[in-house]
Amino acid sequence: MQPSIFTKIINREIPASIVYEDDHVIAFLDMFPLSKGHTLVVPKNQQNNLLESSEEDLAQVLRVVRKIGPVVRDAVGAEAFHVIANVGETITHVSNHTHFHIVPRSKDDGVLPWNSGETTEEERTALADQIKNAL
Amino acid sequence: MQPSIFTKIINREIPASIVYEDDHVIAFLDMFPLSKGHTLVVPKNQQNNLLESSEEDLAQVLRVVRKIGPVVRDAVGAEAFHVIANVGETITHVSNHTHFHIVPRSKDDGVLPWNSGETTEEERTALADQIKNAL
Repeated sequence: MQPSIFTKIINREIPASIVYEDDHVIAFLDMFPLSKGHTLVVPKNQQNNLLESSEEDLAQVLRVVRKIGPVVRDAVGAEAFHVIANVGETITHVSNHTHFHIVPRSKDDGVLPWNSGETTEEERTALADQIKNAL
Repeated sequence: MQPSIFTKIINREIPASIVYEDDHVIAFLDMFPLSKGHTLVVPKNQQNNLLESSEEDLAQVLRVVRKIGPVVRDAVGAEAFHVIANVGETITHVSNHTHFHIVPRSKDDGVLPWNSGETTEEERTALADQIKNAL
C-alpha cells in the first residue's frame, strides 16, 4: 500500500496544522475547509475507509472525535457540528485513508445545505423490503 | 427523559420502514431523505447525541453502519455514501436521540454540495494553536 497523504502527515513528511495526536490517532485542520475549524480525525493505521479499518481503530477515532469536537466547535464560536465519514471516491478527493470530518456549523451559515425530499409510505416499504432481502 | 420519536419507533408506537434491528440497534429509512435510501442507524439506548452515548453503544451503531451501508448503497444503485452524525440543534430537527445517517451518493447528484474554501497557513496555524490550548 502506498503511503497516503495522511500517513505522510503522521510521518512529518508533509506539514499540517495538527491539533491533537496520540499513539493511535492524529487530528489536523482541513486545508480546504467547509467551515472555519473543519478538522480531520485520522487513525494512524492506514486503511482505505471505515469499512476496512478495524473496530479498535474506529473506536479510537470516535474517542478523539468526542474529545475534540466540542473544543473545535467552541474555539470558532459555532453552535453545532457534523461528524462525517465518506465511503467511495465520488464525494471528495482523498479516499485512500479512513478519516472523520468535524465540521462546525452555525444557523444559516449555508454549509452543506440539508435539502431533504419526501417519499411515500409505499416507496419506503418497497425499498426497505429490498434492503432487508439483500442483508 | 421523554421518549424520543426514535424510542417510539423502537417500541412500535409509531411506524417506520425498518431495514435492520438487533438487541442494541435499529435502522430505518429517513422519512425526509437527502437521497434515495437515506437510512438512520440508532442505538436503542436513548441519549441526546454521540457525546452522551456510551462507547459501547457507539461501537454497536458503527458495527451496523458498516454492515448495512454497502447494502443500502448497492440497493439504490449509488456509488458512495456519507456516514453523518450531528451534534447540536442547528442542523436538523431531531436532536434528542443519537443517530447516524447513511446517505447514498452518486456523482453530480447535487446532494450535500461540498463547497470547500481555502485558508492560509497563517490562519490555520493560529487556529490550531487556539484549539490545542483549549484541549
